[in-house]
Amino acid sequence: MAGNSILLAAVSLLSAFQQSYFAFQVGKARLKYKVTPPAVTGSPDFERVFRAQQNCVEFYPVFMLAFWMAGWYFNQALASFLGLVYMYARHQYFFGYSEAVKKRVTGFRLSLVVLALLTFLGTLGIANSFLDEYLDLNIAKKLRWHL
Amino acid sequence: MAGNSILLAAVSLLSAFQQSYFAFQVGKARLKYKVTPPAVTGSPDFERVFRAQQNCVEFYPVFMLAFWMAGWYFNQALASFLGLVYMYARHQYFFGYSEAVKKRVTGFRLSLVVLALLTFLGTLGIANSFLDEYLDLNIAKKLRWHL
Amino acid sequence: MAGNSILLAAVSLLSAFQQSYFAFQVGKARLKYKVTPPAVTGSPDFERVFRAQQNCVEFYPVFMLAFWMAGWYFNQALASFLGLVYMYARHQYFFGYSEAVKKRVTGFRLSLVVLALLTFLGTLGIANSFLDEYLDLNIAKKLRWHL
Repeated sequence: MAGNSILLAAVSLLSAFQQSYFAFQVGKARLKYKVTPPAVTGSPDFERVFRAQQNCVEFYPVFMLAFWMAGWYFNQALASFLGLVYMYARHQYFFGYSEAVKKRVTGFRLSLVVLALLTFLGTLGIANSFLDEYLDLNIAKKLRWHL
Repeated sequence: MAGNSILLAAVSLLSAFQQSYFAFQVGKARLKYKVTPPAVTGSPDFERVFRAQQNCVEFYPVFMLAFWMAGWYFNQALASFLGLVYMYARHQYFFGYSEAVKKRVTGFRLSLVVLALLTFLGTLGIANSFLDEYLDLNIAKKLRWHL
Repeated sequence: MAGNSILLAAVSLLSAFQQSYFAFQVGKARLKYKVTPPAVTGSPDFERVFRAQQNCVEFYPVFMLAFWMAGWYFNQALASFLGLVYMYARHQYFFGYSEAVKKRVTGFRLSLVVLALLTFLGTLGIANSFLDEYLDLNIAKKLRWHL
């Protein structure tokens, strides 16, 4: 299972890079809007960039978890694709929010849809492994057999 | 090791769901107490909900790490049980804190106790694997043999 | 791969402990500078400690990810060593920042260098595994053979 997780690993590393990039943008906004550390308030423009990054930070472990569970227990390629879509949604969200409060909505909604999908696939996969392991019942295999 | 981590995976996904649920509660509190983004201050009621969620966010990666280490290197079922207790403690903490500052204490303390336990079990398990791997000394097995 | 990750597991648990320790320092600073929850502002001294911890929290999942990828796909011992250096850098950063805004720089820079290195090693390792898996081309092995 963990033996072949190359796609998951690659997307994870890419998303870690994206997170660092968002943090770097906050640093740039600090200089641009003259908000000296440790302050995080004072300029609404800076606050938007900061809040956008904070929201990405909050959801990052949740995303990574749903992503790896969907990849390990459901399907690696599909999870990796959804992971890339999530990254795109977060990109849209971050730069939208940086511009205006209203522009955060589209990206945020897309990111939630992807997160829900990953969680759903992960749950399906885990449920199937669970039945297989403890009740010796592999629904995925049976479905394949009946089709 | 990672081959059979179904219980860990299931509890993790559940806890990721809980984290999303807390984030959703912050969104609801924004509307209720009329705190428009990107602001996070202005209403003490909102600030409590927000701070409660932030604290859960801060501890989440630490919890997940201690949880998986305890599950992989000590015992999966015990770690999963403790993971559920942690989630219960965080639930108590979050909704306690949302009501009043004082009501955050019970849940927080319980969550710390569980975290300490998971860390302790993880350390024990890793230490044992370490001795086994590098010094060819398996204390867990020897204890079993002497008893 | 995940079968022998003892060093990674040990360093991870240690770093989770460090994160808890930083959170504990924030609690202590709350008492010392009389900042009652849920407030996080009011005393510049407290704000520095708080911001230092928040920054560590933000980068923690990114660090853990780069760390495990470098350890799994490149080299466990090297990643573990770099993980310890990262922890040292974060220690320097946290206690530097707690004292004065300027004193945060040295530790922060070191932590970024280590993070970049881990990401680079992880990328190399994943790229090699990728070529090996999908194109049946193992560059690491070929290099060894030519030398």
